[in-house]
Amino acid sequence: MTERISSVETIDVRFPTSRHRDGSDAMNPFPDYSAAYVVLRTSAGACGYGLVFTVGRGTEIQVAAVRSLASMVIDRPVDELTADPGALARRLVGDSQIRWLGPEKGVVHMAAGGLVNAVWDLAARRAGKPLWKLLADLTPEQLVAQVDFRYLRDALTEQEALALLRAAVDGRAERERRLRTEGYPAYTTTPGWLGYDDEKLARLCAEAVRDGYRLIKIKVGGNLADDVRRMGIARRAVGPDVRIAVDANQIWGVPEAIRWMRELAPFDPYWIEEPTSPDDVLGHAAVRKALAPVRVATGEHVHNAVMFKQLLQADAVDVVQIDACRVAGVNENLAILLLAAKFGVPVCPHAGGVGLCELVQHLAMFDFVALSGSTEDRAIEYVDHLHEHFTDPVRVSGGRYHAPTAPGMSAEIVPASVIEYRYPDGPQWMPVSAVPVGTGAPTA
Amino acid sequence: MTERISSVETIDVRFPTSRHRDGSDAMNPFPDYSAAYVVLRTSAGACGYGLVFTVGRGTEIQVAAVRSLASMVIDRPVDELTADPGALARRLVGDSQIRWLGPEKGVVHMAAGGLVNAVWDLAARRAGKPLWKLLADLTPEQLVAQVDFRYLRDALTEQEALALLRAAVDGRAERERRLRTEGYPAYTTTPGWLGYDDEKLARLCAEAVRDGYRLIKIKVGGNLADDVRRMGIARRAVGPDVRIAVDANQIWGVPEAIRWMRELAPFDPYWIEEPTSPDDVLGHAAVRKALAPVRVATGEHVHNAVMFKQLLQADAVDVVQIDACRVAGVNENLAILLLAAKFGVPVCPHAGGVGLCELVQHLAMFDFVALSGSTEDRAIEYVDHLHEHFTDPVRVSGGRYHAPTAPGMSAEIVPASVIEYRYPDGPQWMPVSAVPVGTGAPTA
Repeated sequence: MTERISSVETIDVRFPTSRHRDGSDAMNPFPDYSAAYVVLRTSAGACGYGLVFTVGRGTEIQVAAVRSLASMVIDRPVDELTADPGALARRLVGDSQIRWLGPEKGVVHMAAGGLVNAVWDLAARRAGKPLWKLLADLTPEQLVAQVDFRYLRDALTEQEALALLRAAVDGRAERERRLRTEGYPAYTTTPGWLGYDDEKLARLCAEAVRDGYRLIKIKVGGNLADDVRRMGIARRAVGPDVRIAVDANQIWGVPEAIRWMRELAPFDPYWIEEPTSPDDVLGHAAVRKALAPVRVATGEHVHNAVMFKQLLQADAVDVVQIDACRVAGVNENLAILLLAAKFGVPVCPHAGGVGLCELVQHLAMFDFVALSGSTEDRAIEYVDHLHEHFTDPVRVSGGRYHAPTAPGMSAEIVPASVIEYRYPDGPQWMPVSAVPVGTGAPTA
Repeated sequence: MTERISSVETIDVRFPTSRHRDGSDAMNPFPDYSAAYVVLRTSAGACGYGLVFTVGRGTEIQVAAVRSLASMVIDRPVDELTADPGALARRLVGDSQIRWLGPEKGVVHMAAGGLVNAVWDLAARRAGKPLWKLLADLTPEQLVAQVDFRYLRDALTEQEALALLRAAVDGRAERERRLRTEGYPAYTTTPGWLGYDDEKLARLCAEAVRDGYRLIKIKVGGNLADDVRRMGIARRAVGPDVRIAVDANQIWGVPEAIRWMRELAPFDPYWIEEPTSPDDVLGHAAVRKALAPVRVATGEHVHNAVMFKQLLQADAVDVVQIDACRVAGVNENLAILLLAAKFGVPVCPHAGGVGLCELVQHLAMFDFVALSGSTEDRAIEYVDHLHEHFTDPVRVSGGRYHAPTAPGMSAEIVPASVIEYRYPDGPQWMPVSAVPVGTGAPTA
């Protein structure tokens, strides 16, 4: 019997993070970190896990999108899917009717990503390897075959991609050894949420330095006077040598971004992240030109490889922030890593939320071993929330991610957490009844 | 009692257009023109209608998105909504949690557009005016207040928008008179669907010229030899003076677009539409530079005003093709019309599908009366499909749209058609049972 995908379960899981303002920023004052969680099951009883990260309301739309696309996965032979997830990615992204709803953007594109990532997770589990290792063991030719170059060739051809990967074949083994022993640099956003008070900000900044971080991130963009005060607190807490990135989460228009950041320049910000709309390639280029040497970073909301291509072509970014769940999965992120390598721009993945650290670490580690070959000016975002809900949580210490060793993409949520936080019927979300269960009718 | 929105009904309506390959192009070989159809009902029994156009599969995702956003409309006072639809648009687009699913793109953004357009339809019905007239009667200040300038000010400020609108106040009455008597130019895509054979192409091209069209459009991008042959047939059929636009529906990458179009240049194409990904601003600029004097057109998939802004800033387009249902409704289309006016680029709206002609004509006519003041090099796309399903269908004759006179945005679908084509339970979609209804059990 051919092993096939027998079911695709998609579950709305929401964590009530807004209750403590964890994750609060200028555009997201009260996020509830959530996911459309995807579980593929095979006829042989194996599983693959994926998720689309969301921030609360609207997760039901994301779930609906995954369920609609799941028909293109159900009943497919597992050998076929796992041998060539790129073929699945092309089918999902290219469906001639569903494509109208994007194309290659928003809810439908992220749904494709959730399914494609789940197939990669399944492939890595079957291979008995963590995903980063599975990818790093593929040949340059196999990797290039996983990428859709249709809209990229004016910036990156198949031949150029092959050359980049081939140039990194020598040294893969040595870098893999270093990765396993030394890990991969992390930076932390834990201190800087906008909803935290000054005391908490100062304390968490100092702790971050003690914990070994050389780069921290502060949310800005709510109020200029507050930002100036908070940047001062952070700079005093970390000293002159630790880098402080700032993140506006798209709150500004282009002229406003430039004006506001000039006020923060005395505190030596390392990068300004999401100064304006993630769609505004030319806007980012203008901001970058006006604010140099402050770097410009973006990516968590950059919806596909075509947009990253332009950010690079327009010299609009110094830092490419891939996100594991925004684009159509591992395959499109391979394309983005190749584009970044071609243009010589470092990749510092976006993470945090729920599960984003777990998933994206694999992509950065693959990039180090088999493509860019460097961790210089690179770090994966780290936020210390919600890892306890994963069966293979990230391990971060001394300011570094440890390389995962368990098979898969680290995307499986602890089953008890799925039950507890399922929306709207998990215990965390069900309104507490005014009358306790088991209370009988009043007796006469 | 304050009149409130008492319900928002969202219905999946699909027309099986793929059965005759109407609407077939390089990326959409078999579209089933569909809509997430929105009906607002008020506590006083009034209705407002909107729709999000789709092409079949996935309409259920679009419906889910509208239903999720509808909670922000239900129970709102009708006076408040209709007096300031822009406030609703900002709320829908800016919701801090749902925003993660975009921002300002894809299914969620189009859902906002469906609701915002339904509110404008309701406002125009209450005012007893067709929407184009309602808009053209607003003051420049009122119009500018309906636009969100957050991400646009580097290209267009409120003051510049006001100046553009004020400059067009003189002459509004005369242009309205001309619009009512002469109508607005149309162009036709009816002849050129990729699935039509050569005989049908030639016949429909000749008919289009006889019907008064001065611009027709042919789908290209399937096969180069076919395109060369079909362009020859079309050019012979229409003669040298009628313009022929060609439309690739995003099939190409940038270098391929340039190579392919050079082969079609001898047939004097007027514009090349969607030569590549709608997200590729810089790609469109490169194509335009390489192919001049052939014009470059795009817009039906350009997902928001920030993208149109960049297409204009980068000199990437000669023709702006607004779509009534792609962006967040009338308000964002006002922004796009203002941007086009600022950059002096003509707007030729995308239409066809189901209901797109009905809706978008109002925006082009408003633009003529109160903003651009011109119909030169402008025309609204026209396709003669599915108009019979609307209660206020477009009237096109002599190659011109007649100005609508009925109150509203012409978005109401005939109730019997909603029932007939509702998916999946309308008679057009229910599988025909193998056993006729009423067939009894076999008798002994």
